[in-house]
Amino acid sequence: MDHAARLQRLQSELEESDLHALLVTHLPNVRYLCGFTGSAAALLVGARETVLFTDGRYRTQAKEEVEGARVLVARKSPLVAAAELLTTRGKAGQQRVGIEPESITAGMRERLVAAVKGKVRLRAAPPLIERARMVKDADEIVCIRRAVDLGASLFRTACKRIRPGVTEVEVAAAMEYEARCGGAEGMAFPTILAAGARSAIVHGRASGARIPRRGFVVCDFGVILAGYCSDRTRTVHVGRASTEARELYEAVLEAQQAAIATVRAGVTAAEVDGAARRVLRRRRLARYFTHSTGHGLGLEIHEAPRLAAGQTQKLEPGMVVTIEPGVYVPGKWGVRIEDVVVVTASGCEVLTPTDKELIII
Amino acid sequence: MDHAARLQRLQSELEESDLHALLVTHLPNVRYLCGFTGSAAALLVGARETVLFTDGRYRTQAKEEVEGARVLVARKSPLVAAAELLTTRGKAGQQRVGIEPESITAGMRERLVAAVKGKVRLRAAPPLIERARMVKDADEIVCIRRAVDLGASLFRTACKRIRPGVTEVEVAAAMEYEARCGGAEGMAFPTILAAGARSAIVHGRASGARIPRRGFVVCDFGVILAGYCSDRTRTVHVGRASTEARELYEAVLEAQQAAIATVRAGVTAAEVDGAARRVLRRRRLARYFTHSTGHGLGLEIHEAPRLAAGQTQKLEPGMVVTIEPGVYVPGKWGVRIEDVVVVTASGCEVLTPTDKELIII
Repeated sequence: MDHAARLQRLQSELEESDLHALLVTHLPNVRYLCGFTGSAAALLVGARETVLFTDGRYRTQAKEEVEGARVLVARKSPLVAAAELLTTRGKAGQQRVGIEPESITAGMRERLVAAVKGKVRLRAAPPLIERARMVKDADEIVCIRRAVDLGASLFRTACKRIRPGVTEVEVAAAMEYEARCGGAEGMAFPTILAAGARSAIVHGRASGARIPRRGFVVCDFGVILAGYCSDRTRTVHVGRASTEARELYEAVLEAQQAAIATVRAGVTAAEVDGAARRVLRRRRLARYFTHSTGHGLGLEIHEAPRLAAGQTQKLEPGMVVTIEPGVYVPGKWGVRIEDVVVVTASGCEVLTPTDKELIII
Repeated sequence: MDHAARLQRLQSELEESDLHALLVTHLPNVRYLCGFTGSAAALLVGARETVLFTDGRYRTQAKEEVEGARVLVARKSPLVAAAELLTTRGKAGQQRVGIEPESITAGMRERLVAAVKGKVRLRAAPPLIERARMVKDADEIVCIRRAVDLGASLFRTACKRIRPGVTEVEVAAAMEYEARCGGAEGMAFPTILAAGARSAIVHGRASGARIPRRGFVVCDFGVILAGYCSDRTRTVHVGRASTEARELYEAVLEAQQAAIATVRAGVTAAEVDGAARRVLRRRRLARYFTHSTGHGLGLEIHEAPRLAAGQTQKLEPGMVVTIEPGVYVPGKWGVRIEDVVVVTASGCEVLTPTDKELIII
């Protein structure tokens, strides 16, 4: 990963934001900027120097991982150590330091204020790093592609295990075992495996419920591989699918394909969402589509941009987003189909293997 | 779970803390007080009424789970909805409402301040719920016991899978599969499986490294079952163990048993830590014992009290804590042994199955 380029870009943006430094406390942002993967960290990015603060547990790991920053092992908390360094820099009261307001607790902020003793002016910084992270570089796309490929192999496991009478969690357990053996650090989110009437629950985590003789099974799952997330949903049908079930599936698939066909650089996030919603409106299913069409993913499972109504963010080449419309009829059934795509100048590349015909088990 | 009793106790403590209400944003605290397990929630506990705010995704789930609180489904964020309700209560500017400073981001706090429009005085509340949660009630101890029992079965799986040449992550994957099939929602933390020289890494997550022909393997793992965590460490030895290795293991075991023997109501957390440290100091190993002796566990894997030097918290009957001294010689080897115990008036009950002889594989 080109950490130096990322840091340089941020440093030039600090000036535009009228900040002398940025105190990065969101761990995925720390990792993005300098490569450190430990759980205790604060990264101080200044115009001239960048310092990673961690604690004694991570001394060796920090030295191995960190690029582009000096490592300082704090005796107390990394945050307080960063504050202490800040008080020795620049003219007292003149330095403007940005903090990440959504990644620092109110308590941490107060300890920080106390530790800088009025010598530094703390300001809520705009989401500079989140904005940069929206567009993935070539190294990151390689990582996401690998994670998506591993994710794809889990769906084959799911199809082998899904049978009437098997519990949802048994299927999920087999998928998660496969993921771990394939090198995943873990799952990107709790595996959703929702069978029969439970398929209507948008976030139907795998439960002890048994798969019925007949009905949809929504499988929504993702792995974390080398830090990067995958995310994929497929809906299969156990037993004979009625005409109504097939029509429902076709409607969701058509909505998903319409959204994918809309993706290209310059289009807004809302337009992609609108394309999926339009198809479902024509089929009088729009009111059952209760979530947004997709989200960015990378080091985190949910990143900007959000593909939803009202989102004016324009897509750019290198953005990686999910496209995942769904229809959920409470108490009856649900269908969701989800792929990961990379935005290009003229359209998009679908990373997820593309077979999306309804699978009958 | 007796949610009504927990809420009542908190309500009486609010008055002592000079607060009219407490806005609970820490999700394990929300669950503890009213049973709700969703990921979007704010619980407003007042002297007379308790309201759970969530969003549309959790409408059905909230109605099924919540006890002792009115459910209000917010159109925007649960936090803003709570703020809006607050502004309609009491005399403007007279109401003192506590927030949880370590469980609310600086950004959330600012949105909250804006939403209450000066009609409410927000104050950082003391950790009232965390204090209550330290002492487990009978229902909770049943849950923890079940989680610990499931955790115990995973160690048998580990012993079957640990062989020279097998990767650490393959062993972890088999254990995690077992956990899921046994009903676990997931692991309580990333499984630590650290073999050979890696056993010296305190948080050595299972990696792609192969288990060597000879050396220690530290296995530290826990499950989440019905919301409650287990935590257990065993260290086994692959191949013939040298006298030095056996002596190291015996030293850690002796330290662990000394700490367990110290546990009883009225003793301070620091005294338990000191007992383990004293044994290792006699063996000239104290400088390799680089973490604290234990921690509380329950709905979270790390809760109060912390069993560490300087901790004046007195143990009380019903507290559930880990006892887990370890010795780590960088680049060479490490050993840790950990049990979960319940504090009683006269000592403690060890929940973890007690066999702790060195296992040679």
